[in-house]
Amino acid sequence: MTSTAAGPPPLPAAAEAARRTAADLGIGARFSLHPAADDAGAAVLDALAAADRSAVDVVTDDVSTLVRGTEADVVRFVHDVVAAAGRPGRHVVAQVHLSRGCPGEVACATADDVVLAPVVVPDLPATGLRAAAHWALYPLDDGTAGRPGDHMRAIEQAVAVARTRAVVTPSTFVTRLDGDLADVLGAVVDGWLAAARHVRHVVAHATITLHSPSWSAAEVTR
Amino acid sequence: MTSTAAGPPPLPAAAEAARRTAADLGIGARFSLHPAADDAGAAVLDALAAADRSAVDVVTDDVSTLVRGTEADVVRFVHDVVAAAGRPGRHVVAQVHLSRGCPGEVACATADDVVLAPVVVPDLPATGLRAAAHWALYPLDDGTAGRPGDHMRAIEQAVAVARTRAVVTPSTFVTRLDGDLADVLGAVVDGWLAAARHVRHVVAHATITLHSPSWSAAEVTR
Repeated sequence: MTSTAAGPPPLPAAAEAARRTAADLGIGARFSLHPAADDAGAAVLDALAAADRSAVDVVTDDVSTLVRGTEADVVRFVHDVVAAAGRPGRHVVAQVHLSRGCPGEVACATADDVVLAPVVVPDLPATGLRAAAHWALYPLDDGTAGRPGDHMRAIEQAVAVARTRAVVTPSTFVTRLDGDLADVLGAVVDGWLAAARHVRHVVAHATITLHSPSWSAAEVTR
Repeated sequence: MTSTAAGPPPLPAAAEAARRTAADLGIGARFSLHPAADDAGAAVLDALAAADRSAVDVVTDDVSTLVRGTEADVVRFVHDVVAAAGRPGRHVVAQVHLSRGCPGEVACATADDVVLAPVVVPDLPATGLRAAAHWALYPLDDGTAGRPGDHMRAIEQAVAVARTRAVVTPSTFVTRLDGDLADVLGAVVDGWLAAARHVRHVVAHATITLHSPSWSAAEVTR
């Protein structure tokens, strides 16, 4: 297939197939950015404009931004936008909601060997931005007639995986993560994809704070 | 029991028992407020100070605020804080995370007739504040050896319940809710508690926007 008209060149066949599979599997993110600034709207638009969106579909409305694509492309886009929002050095909070998998067996004919196949975790470069997050993982494991689900086991496995990337502190309703933004978001992603090896529908939520006014200058540079 | 020392009077026995049961059942909320303002920190503290906290335990850290108490008391506190943050008329976003129930059968000995008992839904007075939300519900229904879980059915039932309070629009990964803040938050709560009649561990997340700069003046007053 060649491109004869003006416009972006077509995706290579493999990338196009990966994007189709991602859509079938319901992969994507919703996120919102909250700069503590009178001109928050402009700051959000600047951050969104700073990231390469050639590999993802992005729709922003009055509540949040929806990103669709493969896991690696979605995560890289969200990471780049949040990092861009944090670079000016002022307090900003990102709410990140990652979703993957068929919401219900009835609505989704994709076989387990496709849904539960291993996924390449994106490589996120260190940002130099300190981040703290409250992270919650929801493995929606209904189980089967012969085998009940065990969502707490999937959560515990994901928390163990997260420990290899960020400082992990258990808390009420959430797990706290501390580290470089790339490692905090990376830990959320690693845990999400670890659970997705066993559970068809897995959702992660994280509230990620950068440049909190509660942190002293000494803490920020540590 | 009588109070002889200075300090708050003891709770009536029934209220004390309700609060103990709420703690056993893991009931509570985490929420964060994001005013689009250079002085966001002061605005958050003002909103937190405006709500009566006599019936709840509140702990604020650098990422979010944890509220513990009965469902009605937790929801009323969150509602009052978010409404206070919205009253000055500027753009503010609230992230609300409601959690209820035993996270795992092993860790929780409370019987089904207590966990799944009906809960009084708090009466939230109309605020006059227009709100739009992206809402997600996670009924963590593992099922049993003889009966698989069905989290999508619980979500569909909760969405039907939400329709009686707010304008409901299905969207990707979330359900959009529009209406008065009291009805939008009320719909999130109604759906959460409807699912909690059948599922021991139910979590709801909502991103609630007030005074969005995308809304025209005509829309805000409609």
